[in-house]
Amino acid sequence: MTDLSFPPRPDHSAGVAAFATAFGDRFTTSASVCGLHGNSSGIRLPTDGVLYASTTQEIVEALRLCRDHGMPLIPWGAGTSVDGNTAALLGGISLDLSRMDAVLRLSAEDQDCTVQAGITRDGLNSYLRDTGLFFPIDACPHASIGGMASLRASGTTAIRYGTMREQVLGLTVVLANGEVIRTGGRARKSAAGYDLTHLFVGAAGTLGVITEVTLRLQGIPETIMAATCAFPDLEAAMNTVIATIQLGVPIAKIEIMDALQIEYCNGYMNLGLPNLPHLFIEFDGVPEANRAHADLMEGVARDFGGQGFVFATDRGEREQIWTARHNNGASSLHARPGSLVLATDVTVPISRLAECLSETHADLEKVDFPGPISGHVGDGNFHVLLLLDPKSDREQEQAHRFMDRLIERAIRMDGTCSGEHGMGLAKKKWAPVEFGEGAVEAMRTVKRAFDPLNILNPGKIFD
Amino acid sequence: MTDLSFPPRPDHSAGVAAFATAFGDRFTTSASVCGLHGNSSGIRLPTDGVLYASTTQEIVEALRLCRDHGMPLIPWGAGTSVDGNTAALLGGISLDLSRMDAVLRLSAEDQDCTVQAGITRDGLNSYLRDTGLFFPIDACPHASIGGMASLRASGTTAIRYGTMREQVLGLTVVLANGEVIRTGGRARKSAAGYDLTHLFVGAAGTLGVITEVTLRLQGIPETIMAATCAFPDLEAAMNTVIATIQLGVPIAKIEIMDALQIEYCNGYMNLGLPNLPHLFIEFDGVPEANRAHADLMEGVARDFGGQGFVFATDRGEREQIWTARHNNGASSLHARPGSLVLATDVTVPISRLAECLSETHADLEKVDFPGPISGHVGDGNFHVLLLLDPKSDREQEQAHRFMDRLIERAIRMDGTCSGEHGMGLAKKKWAPVEFGEGAVEAMRTVKRAFDPLNILNPGKIFD
Repeated sequence: MTDLSFPPRPDHSAGVAAFATAFGDRFTTSASVCGLHGNSSGIRLPTDGVLYASTTQEIVEALRLCRDHGMPLIPWGAGTSVDGNTAALLGGISLDLSRMDAVLRLSAEDQDCTVQAGITRDGLNSYLRDTGLFFPIDACPHASIGGMASLRASGTTAIRYGTMREQVLGLTVVLANGEVIRTGGRARKSAAGYDLTHLFVGAAGTLGVITEVTLRLQGIPETIMAATCAFPDLEAAMNTVIATIQLGVPIAKIEIMDALQIEYCNGYMNLGLPNLPHLFIEFDGVPEANRAHADLMEGVARDFGGQGFVFATDRGEREQIWTARHNNGASSLHARPGSLVLATDVTVPISRLAECLSETHADLEKVDFPGPISGHVGDGNFHVLLLLDPKSDREQEQAHRFMDRLIERAIRMDGTCSGEHGMGLAKKKWAPVEFGEGAVEAMRTVKRAFDPLNILNPGKIFD
Repeated sequence: MTDLSFPPRPDHSAGVAAFATAFGDRFTTSASVCGLHGNSSGIRLPTDGVLYASTTQEIVEALRLCRDHGMPLIPWGAGTSVDGNTAALLGGISLDLSRMDAVLRLSAEDQDCTVQAGITRDGLNSYLRDTGLFFPIDACPHASIGGMASLRASGTTAIRYGTMREQVLGLTVVLANGEVIRTGGRARKSAAGYDLTHLFVGAAGTLGVITEVTLRLQGIPETIMAATCAFPDLEAAMNTVIATIQLGVPIAKIEIMDALQIEYCNGYMNLGLPNLPHLFIEFDGVPEANRAHADLMEGVARDFGGQGFVFATDRGEREQIWTARHNNGASSLHARPGSLVLATDVTVPISRLAECLSETHADLEKVDFPGPISGHVGDGNFHVLLLLDPKSDREQEQAHRFMDRLIERAIRMDGTCSGEHGMGLAKKKWAPVEFGEGAVEAMRTVKRAFDPLNILNPGKIFD
């Protein structure tokens, strides 16, 4: 499912044979495994082989073989990425890091840890469960930390904790030339040297293989308060968000769902919510602060026509409040069973969000498929879930044009084609539009300097 | 005042003549102006000329002349940097950006703005005074925003707002090849493209000339509460800081001063504080939250032997509480009039800070000069003010060895040689020690890729 065209695949049989010899049963050419590793959000370009790495030294050796054979190496964490980030455009080897999933070091006093890249977000939080700490970035629970770093992932907590950009303190990276470097220490801030860390965060494995990640951790808040509120329209909801932020209310999460998404949730779970746009909010901290912040926000919401403001601190009641948001995907699939689901990911300055959502709603009138919307509105990031009939070429064609118009709209509003999913193959045509040709050429300059043979996840992010 | 040795200065007379012809009275070779621009924290290496730029196009032209003549160009904002960041190691032109000080755009709804690089922090906050917003990073008030970005500056508010790394959303940069690029839009978060922004933030003008900066702004808090508390020793103070952070208390500022620094402040201002280490704290937000957080922290401080916990919300009383911290420099000079003052800048994980401070105190016993200590302890960053007799070669020699031992100690504790001042000339010998030779070679790879002729602020950060 793509409108992309692909170059012919080079013959990597000699390189594949070298991997089989070097790595034995840690290397496979099984068609199903290679297919899985090369499939990302419906862009299916199988790899020629998969190496299950267990040490940094093996990765150094794998890169040597790839250099010798001019063969791509595509780092792979847990396979949760979208938009073709792991698709083997020019064939090559998928470097599966899922066995490198250890917590190497934890400092509760410094609220940081160092993990191997293959550990999942859920795995890390399970490890931390008795420490009073947690890792706050809530991308897909099964996503690997290395993958999240490589795609600069975020989620509902970015308004409070930032994205992977803010949570990664340093990395261990194997460069294309086989050099193993550490990009940062454990100091909470540093003005020393070039910021290599943030060059690799978001580079989708195109500049080096991230093998270890030093992360900030957060203390589990004393109390959490959840709240929700319905609004007559999206603009009223957005005005509430903007005014609340301007008042300096520290929000832990603030999510939006449009009327269609609420309707789907009602249909799936019998929630009985009014079919109106809703905000879902979380405050955390000491109880006195949560209460004061919720009161402030309720006042703002009322000023903008918000209704039915409810809040809760009890865990069960909080989960009840967030049920709709947590089940928006399942509710959407229930509304159109068997759909092929594609998620858009644009982000705009929040002052433009109501306008962007309004134009997007008008655009949805012109296509045959439904597109419920949910979003991380504190960041200006929203996802339209395109619920496509997998048998309809017409709908899929419409979906591509719709996504193009959406991204063009977001960039026109000084936003970005990707808030948290990366660019992969699917969005790289937007790089020159969003950044300008000069900036893309600067990115190419970095790529050529670090990977002159173009063996690290080639063909992603930009052409 | 330096133990550095410098290479011979090339003859740039042809290049200087070309600048004089091209730029007329916006260019000067006045010895005093060239001396001022090449002087950074006592490392005095005058430039061959100073260009007062007023447009990006002039900077493009200046770079063309520098390429043609193989002559360095050193971006200069306000001259507040230290450690030789603006010293003309190989001669060349200082590019003075102080006339490019406009606010180009402000969005109160998005809490962001775009400014020219030459505006000062004070200038920006004056511009914002009627907006309910402020720019929170409090490096030197007269520092330029471009310089602060170039050195990844921070200050007392980093625990709350991060450093320039977190506050810069995007940059306009003129590359060495004359290309003008924009490194990011205004989206609050983005997973699109390489993070060029953070490559230039902290690069000290060695990779490009920052001409415009898009910044996050913050809402002025509803109320601010200041607090202070004395401790029997530094370890007790640090344990209080760590426990408070672990409790999730959101602190706006938390500063430490050691007993010697308090003694100097008492001597200068008759404060009558006990000659013990003190913490100075700020909470901000709704009054209920501030009060609850202050109560929580007071409880923690008492557990660790803290005494005389006082707090205030009234502006005058708050300023009284912070008087000692705000006058630590003047108090120190008063204690040893006529001193040559050097400030160290190491940062360590906060779990190691008490140990690092203790070893540093022991080391201060071995030198002839006093070294009062203050620090941004929430970040693990502290400054020893070395109060040197400017006529004593012995003290200056001791100072260099003392700083070497301090940096070696910080790096051994997984910290950094520079928390917020950059590396300049003075600290570049530490780059391979702190990062490893492989990472420094990766930095050189970036430098060569962006500046193959080595004309942008050459010889800084690493060799």
